[in-house]
Amino acid sequence: MRLSRYLLPTLKETPAEAQIVSHRYMLRAGMIRQTSAGIYAWLPLGYRALRKIEQIVREEQDRFGVQELLMPTIQPAELWRESGRYDDYGKEMLRIRDRHDRDMLYGPTNEEMITDIFRTSVRSYKELPQLLYHIQWKFRDEIRPRFGVMRGREFLMKDAYSFDISAEAARQSYYRFFVCYLSTFARMGLKAVPVKADTGESELFIDKGLLELDMSRDAPAPDGDLEGFFKTITAQYAAADEMHDPAACPVPAERLVSRRGIEVGHIFYFGTKYSVPMGAMVTNRDGEQVPVEMGSYGIGVSRLVGAIIEASHDENGIIWPDSVAPFDVGLINLKSGDADCDAACEDILVKLANAGLECLYDDREERAGAKFADMDLIGLPWQLVVGPRGLKSGVVELKRRATGEREELPLDAALARMTRRGA
Amino acid sequence: MRLSRYLLPTLKETPAEAQIVSHRYMLRAGMIRQTSAGIYAWLPLGYRALRKIEQIVREEQDRFGVQELLMPTIQPAELWRESGRYDDYGKEMLRIRDRHDRDMLYGPTNEEMITDIFRTSVRSYKELPQLLYHIQWKFRDEIRPRFGVMRGREFLMKDAYSFDISAEAARQSYYRFFVCYLSTFARMGLKAVPVKADTGESELFIDKGLLELDMSRDAPAPDGDLEGFFKTITAQYAAADEMHDPAACPVPAERLVSRRGIEVGHIFYFGTKYSVPMGAMVTNRDGEQVPVEMGSYGIGVSRLVGAIIEASHDENGIIWPDSVAPFDVGLINLKSGDADCDAACEDILVKLANAGLECLYDDREERAGAKFADMDLIGLPWQLVVGPRGLKSGVVELKRRATGEREELPLDAALARMTRRGA
Repeated sequence: MRLSRYLLPTLKETPAEAQIVSHRYMLRAGMIRQTSAGIYAWLPLGYRALRKIEQIVREEQDRFGVQELLMPTIQPAELWRESGRYDDYGKEMLRIRDRHDRDMLYGPTNEEMITDIFRTSVRSYKELPQLLYHIQWKFRDEIRPRFGVMRGREFLMKDAYSFDISAEAARQSYYRFFVCYLSTFARMGLKAVPVKADTGESELFIDKGLLELDMSRDAPAPDGDLEGFFKTITAQYAAADEMHDPAACPVPAERLVSRRGIEVGHIFYFGTKYSVPMGAMVTNRDGEQVPVEMGSYGIGVSRLVGAIIEASHDENGIIWPDSVAPFDVGLINLKSGDADCDAACEDILVKLANAGLECLYDDREERAGAKFADMDLIGLPWQLVVGPRGLKSGVVELKRRATGEREELPLDAALARMTRRGA
Repeated sequence: MRLSRYLLPTLKETPAEAQIVSHRYMLRAGMIRQTSAGIYAWLPLGYRALRKIEQIVREEQDRFGVQELLMPTIQPAELWRESGRYDDYGKEMLRIRDRHDRDMLYGPTNEEMITDIFRTSVRSYKELPQLLYHIQWKFRDEIRPRFGVMRGREFLMKDAYSFDISAEAARQSYYRFFVCYLSTFARMGLKAVPVKADTGESELFIDKGLLELDMSRDAPAPDGDLEGFFKTITAQYAAADEMHDPAACPVPAERLVSRRGIEVGHIFYFGTKYSVPMGAMVTNRDGEQVPVEMGSYGIGVSRLVGAIIEASHDENGIIWPDSVAPFDVGLINLKSGDADCDAACEDILVKLANAGLECLYDDREERAGAKFADMDLIGLPWQLVVGPRGLKSGVVELKRRATGEREELPLDAALARMTRRGA
């Protein structure tokens, strides 16, 4: 992709409304544009990051045997009246009246609708468990939306639902999502720590051992001992500050660390809360009709874009983990318009594509300083710098964004370095 | 994927409300479920088809140099007041008031919002052309939604917008989308014919020569002679019935054919209709501020699922073109529970996966007739039938859904047949 033709409206100044670093950097890096309070358009660079994250979420759901479907954004009020939540939900629910004066709403979540789909589709314990997910835009009409995509009104969420014949079977589904989630977040370069909590952000108190685990290595496969892993992990101390009692904490001070937590997902077991009022019954082994046991499992997909930036940045901008970077490498032409530099860059573009590396090529006629600053700001994992001096001696400069390490080396060696690290 | 665990609620009876074949088959094949009038949930099988189609649309947009972004579903009314369309649009626009009593709407299209993004991001002719698209759910509050996903209220659309410095440059963008669209539809196995028309469905009168073209072979590459191709194609006669005058038709009767048309996309050049009232100006080569020239280009992504079924089915069900089939092959175990048949099928599943073929495995304990009927109904391109008799003589049965051709052959030969055809 050529930057001269790419819609990337980077900003030099920090927008006044942005209170947290991810919001500031997403605006400055031209990733998002606010279109109404708490509602954002995802510009090309931002949307690439969002889709990378979404795809990891999808792959891990699929790998753990969860089936993807897609429910609509607009729901009928009747379903929510059946569960009793239509009146309970309050002003965060965006209520809509259609042209025939029917009460509708923009779904903030989908327990009712998935229960309705289930009850009209599944009859017998033989078809259980059913694990279903979708990745869809949701709306919560927050009174004071803020922090950019971390707390927007329209947001992308992966929500999954489990249907089981018994509480014990439902617990197995719960373990399955528990492990799936730890694998998912590890693939994005995040340290995820499971805690019991009511709300999202808070200070966490954690046994150091939990932070030392590498979930991408330690988490079991979908057919492994999910329950055993769940018990091992949850035996270690982790508590949100509202639950943490220093006097009663079983972890010795030297092993206890505190960290700021950001909620990126949640898993719930809620039994028959929806299946009983909504009549979602299945036949059990004895031929009796019993209400199905349910759980729900959410991941804030658009919020993760912000969360990853909160966890990975420096004073110059974003530092994308390799797996979710919108492009693998930024190619900087130090002298756009110079025939040799242009030709060398065109050649490099072909070689990068052949190596399977996605490249954003800064071919603009800008001074070098501005190009470096923009490239640091948008935070691609690698920068490849091509200038007249290096070309004469047959080298390019390769910079690793995360460490700042720079090296002059022949192009082939640079390609080898990038593909090795990416693998 | 194992059918015994797959959410595929097929129906034997035809639902009374479905008036057209695609609607009937999509309901019967368990692809969709209506959740409100004109609003559908996409069940796992249907969602796979939708995503295949969406991905082809995306790949062709990308190949022709159109940049993907994503605008939100909920838009502020102010933008539509700027263009003057807020009052004009009528009851098809779903109008919403948020908790702060601000007028919002569920976007039926995005000219205003993309123009707003453009005017605050792009300043100079040097950054043009800008070709931008997104694939997002839209809402039109149809008074009488019908025909399933062909005319629903909530529907998935790819809409693209071009921004150029002059009318002549805008025409080049228009040609680009013209060719891109013909390539896109050809990849889905559709015969697409460009016609001037105001509305969607109608009888078309077409020069036979147009139907004989194979766009996947004949359409030029993105850097080819797009204008020349546009002129060649549009020189041939094609007219919707409201435009067709038999007396004045230049095509001799023996070359004129009539076909039922389904609108799957549209391309518009509208110049400065939005840029003037909304002040989307750029600096031209002479340093003057001029309004940008625009066009818009839509593809009904969810509607295409129905359109493809309308174009490709028989009395037993859907016949998916290879490129958009939810799975490549359906594996039918004639005797689930029989140790030999089960083991053979498990082995085949591994081999299919290794060959890169996506498989839906009917492992249910059902009679053979029901399995055959369901497999024909859902219309996967290949059926692979495994039974005790064949296993003894070392063969499986391979059926091509489109032709009904059946052949008994060793598994390796069947795999070779399927991968050759798919390539």
